[in-house]
Amino acid sequence: MTDSFHPPDLHFAERVRASFQQQTVMATIGATVRSVAPGAVEIELPFRADLCQQDGFLHAGIVTTVVDSACGYAAYTLMPAHARVLSVEFKINFLAPAVGDSFIARGKVARAGRTVTVCTGEVIALSQDAQRVIALMQATMMTVFG
Amino acid sequence: MTDSFHPPDLHFAERVRASFQQQTVMATIGATVRSVAPGAVEIELPFRADLCQQDGFLHAGIVTTVVDSACGYAAYTLMPAHARVLSVEFKINFLAPAVGDSFIARGKVARAGRTVTVCTGEVIALSQDAQRVIALMQATMMTVFG
Amino acid sequence: MTDSFHPPDLHFAERVRASFQQQTVMATIGATVRSVAPGAVEIELPFRADLCQQDGFLHAGIVTTVVDSACGYAAYTLMPAHARVLSVEFKINFLAPAVGDSFIARGKVARAGRTVTVCTGEVIALSQDAQRVIALMQATMMTVFG
Amino acid sequence: MTDSFHPPDLHFAERVRASFQQQTVMATIGATVRSVAPGAVEIELPFRADLCQQDGFLHAGIVTTVVDSACGYAAYTLMPAHARVLSVEFKINFLAPAVGDSFIARGKVARAGRTVTVCTGEVIALSQDAQRVIALMQATMMTVFG
Repeated sequence: MTDSFHPPDLHFAERVRASFQQQTVMATIGATVRSVAPGAVEIELPFRADLCQQDGFLHAGIVTTVVDSACGYAAYTLMPAHARVLSVEFKINFLAPAVGDSFIARGKVARAGRTVTVCTGEVIALSQDAQRVIALMQATMMTVFG
Repeated sequence: MTDSFHPPDLHFAERVRASFQQQTVMATIGATVRSVAPGAVEIELPFRADLCQQDGFLHAGIVTTVVDSACGYAAYTLMPAHARVLSVEFKINFLAPAVGDSFIARGKVARAGRTVTVCTGEVIALSQDAQRVIALMQATMMTVFG
Repeated sequence: MTDSFHPPDLHFAERVRASFQQQTVMATIGATVRSVAPGAVEIELPFRADLCQQDGFLHAGIVTTVVDSACGYAAYTLMPAHARVLSVEFKINFLAPAVGDSFIARGKVARAGRTVTVCTGEVIALSQDAQRVIALMQATMMTVFG
Repeated sequence: MTDSFHPPDLHFAERVRASFQQQTVMATIGATVRSVAPGAVEIELPFRADLCQQDGFLHAGIVTTVVDSACGYAAYTLMPAHARVLSVEFKINFLAPAVGDSFIARGKVARAGRTVTVCTGEVIALSQDAQRVIALMQATMMTVFG
């Protein structure tokens, strides 16, 4: 898991950012790309009171939305220019309530295969005086052609 | 998995609907409760173009958001009146692209324990001439007191 | 999930049984094929005291071993004659301690794709006077050629 | 995930090793404890031809068995002396075929809660000239009293 990755398409970062722009849900919830590196993408989501569950924490599904995209785009950085990426499945554990001023979702490639890429993700809650891992994801992404 | 369930609190349906009202994200995305029964809850989400991923399908995270709530509330129907419900973790497989006019998320309790409740969920895409299961979830919910 | 499946290879049952014979671990733990149908396979494992965890229950990993094979072979029934099947990943919830005289692992195909097949599995513990679902699996299987 | 852990019971290592001795399946498959530290346990399993799937690789369920125990015992190191540990659920991705002379399963605690502990696990295949991560697990363990 400490491999250095060699993206087959040198324009991977532009490709990720362009695709992210087309994910309309990201504008709807206010998420932005924070960083793009080979096999690693970060997405930031400021807290918003209209994205919560019944106790006023960010809804688990919204936490999932940003880390799913972070994992998917981490996989996408290592795909050929004309491929598309799809989420096959993922699993996520919630370690602590999603309380914070802002949330950073980090997706990383654990293994990139020809068809299937396995990623790990984490979500960190930032508040004035602390940062805390609130969720862990393990995801399977698929390279789709045509 | 065909047990009939006996909710300890007869007002379980009102309790689910009241809690759902407090999930601000549900109003934000346009989801509503479709049905509440002991150990089973359905949530409906009409398609919206501002909740999509890069190919114009509903984003996997939004699909997840509604079925996570459906599973959580299915578990909640079987909890005592003063308990709260939290998602410990879930896993979801995406079987087909989330294309449709509307989506029904169904959560069902597979086993209700004192602390941990296991649920299964599915999401069905409805279009004019077809309905199709597009996602399957397996989730662990927790009963929290105080 | 109530589709009837049409195996492309009519000898699917012989193919499953022949492959199962090559899974040396199945003989080691004493598991046998109980039934094979299109998209559905059952494996039986009698309880054995040398397959247990620290409390004398069947070890979760052994429960997993039989239901992983049941899911894999359920997927395999729908694959072409020259394909192989591999487990991409799975998730399993343990609903009750694995106590019983014998265990039936059932794997079913939820959706068969060209490359990826999604299965659900369950494990039932049989004792003299009861049967009980003790585990639920959701698995992703892959069709491999060559 | 870089917290240092403070086991409430200083005899955690003896407790893990004594419990492992009671897991009869570990002797059956030939697995041994390799290391025990606060929040981290390693189990080793030499390759054996009678624990394989149809292609001669270690069966995914056996890979799972050792890393489930590694995760469970990692959680157990941080539990009070009189608690027991149970696997609530886990998810595992298989990154490469389980080929090697020996396999090391590493379990680590990501977050230890009062009732629920979340662990991550990995399995490394060792051969004469290489070592390779072949599986990643994310697991939920439960502290049980009485």
